[in-house]
Amino acid sequence: MHTSVGSWPKSTNQFIIGSMSVPSGYFDYAAATPLDTDVINAMTPFLEGCFFNPSAIYESARKSKSVLEDSRKTVAEVIGVKPVDIIFTAGATEANNLAIRGVMSQFPSGNIVISAIEHESISAPAEKYQVKTADVDDKGLVDIESLIGKIDEETVLISIILASNEVGTVQPIAKIAKELEIIRKQRKEVGNPTPLYFHTDGAQASNYLDIHAHRLGVDMLTLNGGKMYGPKQSGILYVKSGLQLEPILYGGGQERGLRSGSENLAQIVGFSVALQKAQALRSIEVDRLQILQHLFFDQLISRIPGAKINGHRKHRLPNNLHITLEGQDNERIIMMLDEMGFSASTGSACSASSDVPSHVLKAMNLSDQQISGSLRFTMGRQTSQQDVERLVASIAETLAQN
Amino acid sequence: MHTSVGSWPKSTNQFIIGSMSVPSGYFDYAAATPLDTDVINAMTPFLEGCFFNPSAIYESARKSKSVLEDSRKTVAEVIGVKPVDIIFTAGATEANNLAIRGVMSQFPSGNIVISAIEHESISAPAEKYQVKTADVDDKGLVDIESLIGKIDEETVLISIILASNEVGTVQPIAKIAKELEIIRKQRKEVGNPTPLYFHTDGAQASNYLDIHAHRLGVDMLTLNGGKMYGPKQSGILYVKSGLQLEPILYGGGQERGLRSGSENLAQIVGFSVALQKAQALRSIEVDRLQILQHLFFDQLISRIPGAKINGHRKHRLPNNLHITLEGQDNERIIMMLDEMGFSASTGSACSASSDVPSHVLKAMNLSDQQISGSLRFTMGRQTSQQDVERLVASIAETLAQN
Repeated sequence: MHTSVGSWPKSTNQFIIGSMSVPSGYFDYAAATPLDTDVINAMTPFLEGCFFNPSAIYESARKSKSVLEDSRKTVAEVIGVKPVDIIFTAGATEANNLAIRGVMSQFPSGNIVISAIEHESISAPAEKYQVKTADVDDKGLVDIESLIGKIDEETVLISIILASNEVGTVQPIAKIAKELEIIRKQRKEVGNPTPLYFHTDGAQASNYLDIHAHRLGVDMLTLNGGKMYGPKQSGILYVKSGLQLEPILYGGGQERGLRSGSENLAQIVGFSVALQKAQALRSIEVDRLQILQHLFFDQLISRIPGAKINGHRKHRLPNNLHITLEGQDNERIIMMLDEMGFSASTGSACSASSDVPSHVLKAMNLSDQQISGSLRFTMGRQTSQQDVERLVASIAETLAQN
Repeated sequence: MHTSVGSWPKSTNQFIIGSMSVPSGYFDYAAATPLDTDVINAMTPFLEGCFFNPSAIYESARKSKSVLEDSRKTVAEVIGVKPVDIIFTAGATEANNLAIRGVMSQFPSGNIVISAIEHESISAPAEKYQVKTADVDDKGLVDIESLIGKIDEETVLISIILASNEVGTVQPIAKIAKELEIIRKQRKEVGNPTPLYFHTDGAQASNYLDIHAHRLGVDMLTLNGGKMYGPKQSGILYVKSGLQLEPILYGGGQERGLRSGSENLAQIVGFSVALQKAQALRSIEVDRLQILQHLFFDQLISRIPGAKINGHRKHRLPNNLHITLEGQDNERIIMMLDEMGFSASTGSACSASSDVPSHVLKAMNLSDQQISGSLRFTMGRQTSQQDVERLVASIAETLAQN
């Protein structure tokens, strides 16, 4: 049985970005990334030959099991945790639901505090429980004081998105973790046995940010294969040792009973290779994309008077270009750009098909009219300077036509 | 964008079984099937190029969406239902959990009746509610009288496995459906508004059985891609129009809100092609495997005095060979067979790694000693007469060595 997982080159230099077939006008990497060629190659043996059920006891099945555990080890190493703390899930939505419901269902009188700009896969399950929402400022940055102020003696879980899928703002997770540690100590002093867990949704983070669990200071971390050039509906939830979760899916007891179902080894191997590569390319890609990001913002502001950049300028994913063209109809612009060969989004892809104005932009105090004129462009490994320059020119052209 | 989904040949004659790389001693098709070459080919475009998020609004995303809906249509046609009633899930475990919890969480005082031989992905979520268990006979056939007797005025859901993953016994689902229809009418007459839904877990069924939802008479049906030469952790839940389920996973609202998460188009397309092919090859494979099944049983009985065949002889999956060699240690035999190149199981792969004696065999009144001597061999598309003859000879050899 062949697998490249164990022998994957560790050095950044050995990774190449490779040729993925992506249209040059594709600016929606936050909605979906193409599969990296190295990821496909790593998955192929598990689509073609090595199909054995890791739970069986004969030799070929034990090999499947060992590949599964190698992948777990790989992922754990990247995050800086123990392999046993990694739960493979069918995507980030499942991981987020498992984090929220897995904790909250055990504390009927407990409450959860989230930010106002969480993804629906956090806010929707959180709403099934007593939930309190921390404010963000007009850059989408979580107000730590507001967050800490929401915590009471019954709060058992805090979940804050690591980087906004809409405006790209990166949250001060490590800082928040330190504040929570103070509260935990206070609880110990007063004899309050209620735990205070900290989860972060890192679905958009792994290409660009440090996702080391201990440096972040989190007890649970969600990652998303489908946004880092890995397979869609692949994901993990890191769960700190000792933190007991109630499963969402019951059955054969795979993944320590937290995600029953015969394992999809191709997806799992694909996820682990994608994560390794994303983190290995991280600093190169951050530098490269920050230059393109600045180029875009500078050219936009100079060519389109009144254009507004949303989100934080510094604490921001380097691939996110979120703007408001006030008075414009974003759907109309997207359709016009689509005809010119550009793919963009009015916001989160998950809610793009609904007519509800973005809760993220609302929380950042944008007016309904500003929200209607807001556009999200997200770059990725195949985005070039030329693509960015063409994009700015094309946006200007659509406005000239209006 | 290329997809073979829409243009897939409908006639049986055009399907070939194809060359999958399966060891000739592989007798664990119930635990895992290899991916069919046609399935891989259908998935490939969605791994390589067509990676767009179906929820986005530009043209390439709308194409993804249309492939998604074509796949849904294909699946619906095979089952004989409306496309809107098909929910794509990440596997059969998820589909089973959604069926059980999706109904039961809405009826706090309701109860569910299941059989004694359900897969853990039914029995484990059912145990979270008030559950009653219908007996099976010594062939693993559900006792309809026992089942009907368990139903009271608060029963809202019946879930019976279509074909046992362990012993292969096929249940009289259509007959049970008729009995339930009588109870529904009685409820109407006495003014009991409690619904009585009927779900069947068809995870092992699609290669060999009629899975037409109306002919089965069910309100919900689970199918499993990973057991029909399709991708692992791909599955569907058919949900009859009008039946409202509470989701398990909340988020972006995909799959009518019942399975949030960016869709994995490769898996979905793979599932739909695998299902079409499985059903197209069904009658050929049933005939072929029944001959091999009889050959195995005849040769086993003649060569190994005292060998016992478990499960029903007539109402049975044609690929299932479940036997008891009393006084033998099944794990030891599996290890010896493994060394001779054969892959077999002591029972369900999901619980093979646990030491708990099979609840299915217990329900069929096998003694602990009989259970310890029980083995499951399951055949598939690559199993030949020669393989079966070699298997019988090898079993006889292991016994001679003991």
